[in-house]
Amino acid sequence: MTSMTDLPLFLQAATGIDTRTAPVWFMRQAGRHLPEYRALKEKYAFWELCRNPELATEVTMQPVRRYGMDAAILFSDIMTPLPPMGIGVEFRPGPVIDEPIRSAAQVSALRVPDEDEIAPFVADTLRLLEQASPVPPIGFGGAPLTLATYAIEGSGSKEYPALRAFLRTHPAVAHALLEKLTETSIRYLRMQVRSGARAVQLFDSWAGLHDARTYAEFALPYNRRILEALGETGVPRIFLAVGAPHLLDQVATLPAEVFSIDWREPLDAIRPRLPAGCTLQGNLDPAALLAPPDAIRSAVTAVLDAGRGGPHIFNLGHGIFKNTPPENVVIALEALRAYDRHAG
Amino acid sequence: MTSMTDLPLFLQAATGIDTRTAPVWFMRQAGRHLPEYRALKEKYAFWELCRNPELATEVTMQPVRRYGMDAAILFSDIMTPLPPMGIGVEFRPGPVIDEPIRSAAQVSALRVPDEDEIAPFVADTLRLLEQASPVPPIGFGGAPLTLATYAIEGSGSKEYPALRAFLRTHPAVAHALLEKLTETSIRYLRMQVRSGARAVQLFDSWAGLHDARTYAEFALPYNRRILEALGETGVPRIFLAVGAPHLLDQVATLPAEVFSIDWREPLDAIRPRLPAGCTLQGNLDPAALLAPPDAIRSAVTAVLDAGRGGPHIFNLGHGIFKNTPPENVVIALEALRAYDRHAG
Repeated sequence: MTSMTDLPLFLQAATGIDTRTAPVWFMRQAGRHLPEYRALKEKYAFWELCRNPELATEVTMQPVRRYGMDAAILFSDIMTPLPPMGIGVEFRPGPVIDEPIRSAAQVSALRVPDEDEIAPFVADTLRLLEQASPVPPIGFGGAPLTLATYAIEGSGSKEYPALRAFLRTHPAVAHALLEKLTETSIRYLRMQVRSGARAVQLFDSWAGLHDARTYAEFALPYNRRILEALGETGVPRIFLAVGAPHLLDQVATLPAEVFSIDWREPLDAIRPRLPAGCTLQGNLDPAALLAPPDAIRSAVTAVLDAGRGGPHIFNLGHGIFKNTPPENVVIALEALRAYDRHAG
Repeated sequence: MTSMTDLPLFLQAATGIDTRTAPVWFMRQAGRHLPEYRALKEKYAFWELCRNPELATEVTMQPVRRYGMDAAILFSDIMTPLPPMGIGVEFRPGPVIDEPIRSAAQVSALRVPDEDEIAPFVADTLRLLEQASPVPPIGFGGAPLTLATYAIEGSGSKEYPALRAFLRTHPAVAHALLEKLTETSIRYLRMQVRSGARAVQLFDSWAGLHDARTYAEFALPYNRRILEALGETGVPRIFLAVGAPHLLDQVATLPAEVFSIDWREPLDAIRPRLPAGCTLQGNLDPAALLAPPDAIRSAVTAVLDAGRGGPHIFNLGHGIFKNTPPENVVIALEALRAYDRHAG
């Protein structure tokens, strides 16, 4: 099969081909675990690195150059579309919202920017990546409820009490906010594809906070709208819900080619519960990359074993830990590349 | 059935009786959401309130007096047995470990204190509660892996990278630590029953961090040993794993009379997956108590509806949020008490 196509390995797997070798990229592969990133970070603030297309391209390419990753995830942050909507964000280092959104008046005042207004620097970065990257660039955005989680709570939290109370107290205002976040996200992601992204991933990083009923009301329909709108672009759509084993039946109804799975459940337990023929992405525990070499190899092999029986993109179950030694990533990649998914 | 026993309502349900009214208590019911607690907290540090039996009794009784709760959960912290083992803990306000446990030498140096050494102030508090409380006092402890989570990581975290890496890098040292935590916990909980606790709850608050394989190796056997040891005491054993829908099949094998369920899944989806005849405890989303009155009532009713078909102790799915208005608790309790679990 694989020899019948000129598609890059990542896009083969993302479009449903059961490749002999699993393509690989790691969430947060560009960033703090790399010494070459930390060197840049001494000179530039995080936002500067995101907003300067040359710098963002350089940071995006660092892990591709060092490791030969099969995809180049755009260096950016899911918060990117919030400031052009009128929601100020600072990084200290986690995102902090200038004025958390808690009222209908605040939601009414939010803009839904045009496609070209949201983040011209992201468009420029993707255009540079189209030339610079030997592997497909992946664009991404945050799922509306995950973006609203920060917008309403105001900062990171263990339990997000303000968000969760808000959904129950002001559901209509929450829906109005989610509408605007959804429309902005559609425009933002379409722009990314138009600018060169060959796949897009929607990150529902805080899905796992919610019970099934809350998720069905405040998350699922908005995720569906975004993914449906992106269907017209023709690029593979990757969906990730973190901490959400209890939401898998809902997730399985979403129109995506690829489902990214966190580290909590083995891929062979997940695959039968998702649509036939879809691609699984994941799901090495990022902690495995801090283990001794033999433990890394056996953890990688276990994920690859569980990923068989359908197309698989190898990834972590969540972002790489910032204290991951790059040599451990190399050990993982060697084990991966030596593994024949079609063997006996 | 209920008229055939003199047992307090909480103990009826905890021992498997399908009561007409669900008994109720709330995790963290004693503490920061109560103005009478905050008044004491202005005068005393958190540790002082825990360690002074008169004060701890007063704090334990505050929600029982105010709300007529059906059980009096001991005012304490799951960290209590760590200092007598030799692990220093401060609260700022979350627990911070003086010297995180990262080496075999540190684990070897840890003590397993005698039953009476661990927390004499807890024994005294429970003896005072036996006299002061019109309802059964509940004792509690942290599950070994949850205690190790703090002991190894050193403080609260979103992802606990140090803990998760440690389990993979130094599994033998982790097991040695878990052994000592398990034996200490057995002694600590036995002492609580001997001192007057009429039920005990084991909190596995960080269960949800782990994949099934990690949980099966580092958590389940230790939880089982504690619960088995407590079986000899004759009091109902309550087990809570937070964020762990993917671990329910493992949890279901534990010897407990009561399974406390977080807010993520409805009780009627959970009951068929647990041993026949066991009691379910839970699982109102704590965020529901920040909603308008009608939304509170309908959320309470939904939990009660889903709890039918077997014994049920009403509780939250996790600790009460500190900004919960006490009048909202009253609204929830009124809805609960008006609900006939045996009706039509």
